[in-house]
Amino acid sequence: MRSAGAVRFRDPQIEMAHGAGGKASRRLVEGLIAPLLGGPLLGPLMDAAVLELGAERVALTADAFVVRPLRFPGGSIGELAVNGTLNDLAMAAARPAALVVTLVLEAGLAASVLEAEVRAIAAAAERAGVGVVGGDTKVVEHGKADGMYITTTGLGIVDPRARLSPAAVRPGDRVLLSGPIGDHGITILLARGELDFEASLCSDTRPVLPFVERLLDVAADGLRWMRDPTRGGVASALNELAVDTRLGVGLLEEMIPLRDQVRGACELLGLDPLHIANEGQFLAVLAPEVADAALAAVRATPGGEAAALIGEIRTEPAGAVLSTAPYGGARIVDMLVGDPLPRIC
Amino acid sequence: MRSAGAVRFRDPQIEMAHGAGGKASRRLVEGLIAPLLGGPLLGPLMDAAVLELGAERVALTADAFVVRPLRFPGGSIGELAVNGTLNDLAMAAARPAALVVTLVLEAGLAASVLEAEVRAIAAAAERAGVGVVGGDTKVVEHGKADGMYITTTGLGIVDPRARLSPAAVRPGDRVLLSGPIGDHGITILLARGELDFEASLCSDTRPVLPFVERLLDVAADGLRWMRDPTRGGVASALNELAVDTRLGVGLLEEMIPLRDQVRGACELLGLDPLHIANEGQFLAVLAPEVADAALAAVRATPGGEAAALIGEIRTEPAGAVLSTAPYGGARIVDMLVGDPLPRIC
Repeated sequence: MRSAGAVRFRDPQIEMAHGAGGKASRRLVEGLIAPLLGGPLLGPLMDAAVLELGAERVALTADAFVVRPLRFPGGSIGELAVNGTLNDLAMAAARPAALVVTLVLEAGLAASVLEAEVRAIAAAAERAGVGVVGGDTKVVEHGKADGMYITTTGLGIVDPRARLSPAAVRPGDRVLLSGPIGDHGITILLARGELDFEASLCSDTRPVLPFVERLLDVAADGLRWMRDPTRGGVASALNELAVDTRLGVGLLEEMIPLRDQVRGACELLGLDPLHIANEGQFLAVLAPEVADAALAAVRATPGGEAAALIGEIRTEPAGAVLSTAPYGGARIVDMLVGDPLPRIC
Repeated sequence: MRSAGAVRFRDPQIEMAHGAGGKASRRLVEGLIAPLLGGPLLGPLMDAAVLELGAERVALTADAFVVRPLRFPGGSIGELAVNGTLNDLAMAAARPAALVVTLVLEAGLAASVLEAEVRAIAAAAERAGVGVVGGDTKVVEHGKADGMYITTTGLGIVDPRARLSPAAVRPGDRVLLSGPIGDHGITILLARGELDFEASLCSDTRPVLPFVERLLDVAADGLRWMRDPTRGGVASALNELAVDTRLGVGLLEEMIPLRDQVRGACELLGLDPLHIANEGQFLAVLAPEVADAALAAVRATPGGEAAALIGEIRTEPAGAVLSTAPYGGARIVDMLVGDPLPRIC
């Protein structure tokens, strides 16, 4: 679908924005990394790669986590590193079979901090019923990492009912969002104490596989596409969908679940909530005939009560996302540009 | 075999030695990480985890690379990151099916340096006939990494002929080493320019799967155990074997292939070549009746000409490695203690 080579990477050096999940990230991956590594399938563009292995379809993914601070309301890097990778598998409709965790530790890190994160990794893996089967640990000099960076690899078995592909997306399909957006990004920002703003927000980090299983039960091959809107937010994920399908996405702004505190922080900071990262939400494109049943199924699953159908797939504007406000007026929602909230995962 | 919980981690903070592959690394993994993550199978102790997936036996591994400098005679971090992971699969007798690469990039990294390493990754993967099917890229602030850290995940299919296990090792088994030791570690040390010593050494980074395939052809289940002696060197790998099997390893010092330049550098620095890291060598334990044929097979494979049988498995000294010098005299070879050569991979 994606035309490899259409994007050129001309930036002379790496900037924070290249890791933000928006336009610069896409330029780096599509313009430099993917062409050299042999194909447009690589990179953050796909949450997980799906491979045929004997009679099984397996999904393989790996994600690096560099969030700071290491602990924040609602979670920590260890929990995030497991949930994030599990969610990439879930977006490929894959149940986890094994995790591998690699740690880059900074010399001088308190053993108690490491122990807390290993416990968080263990708890998140146990919650998902998957084992950590291997790992690797490297140590770099003091100052050469922020306590720790974690990369988590996930291997999963794809549900045989799943038929996910951007190629399956049709005009008239509905877009489901699992819950309120922006909690994770704004929580991290507040946890850094750089902002004179109080809010009782928590990261939304959680595994989303339980929702995906209910969706497969009710929608089967009416479930066309899924993505967890992490870095770059809902806007970047839906823009990638629009580009990949050459279709348009029409959003109904008032249908998008959003906490007042996130809305307030975004207004204060001049940020669009659609650009803020989430760590426990997902987007799904559903055939119109199964959309209502799918929404009911997600809402009936604990933690899915705020799910909503937030828009639909259209032929126009091809390759773009158009958001309509409640009292008229519409705007093109672009991918994230720059990096307003660095290192949120 | 290994008694989990026997090791306690009491160190108050992380030090460079915890990443060196020797005693401190083992204490960290066995005393803290593995018990919390639910078992003694985890960590650098195993090069790759082997899982049953439907009818297939698959191997899964991930390794973090933080070598500095990024480029050195004979290789670079990108090539090392692919070969190192391929070799962990090879040590499980697994052929690679897919790689996933995650990058942590430092803001300010020249795009040309990144491009060179992505090219190195692509070339090493192509040489091994395996695709890079996915990845992830994060960016941290200038000063928070040394250009880049890479984690490489490998998924492989285990050769059905392989019956590798420390439990299969018997007294009388022979120990094969694939070639000269210490080239990688000493090359990295010299590349840092911290040493007033000139040598025309190159890293030995290379994939070792071609040798493993020949070994399986001639030895089948006479091939008991393999390990690539990276961090911590041959001494640490064989000590782990000795501890895991509760048997002894007897080495014949004069049989160990070693370049004069590595010997000279080690004498100058007071290092034991058996503690120096390798990135293109492996150790194999073979049943005595197949050992000579196995040696001939490795020697007949390009790059294996210097392979040697360097010792044998004995009942004594149980749990330890004893090295015998050419003109009499024997010494216990311990695991690496401390970190004389930090960040060599």
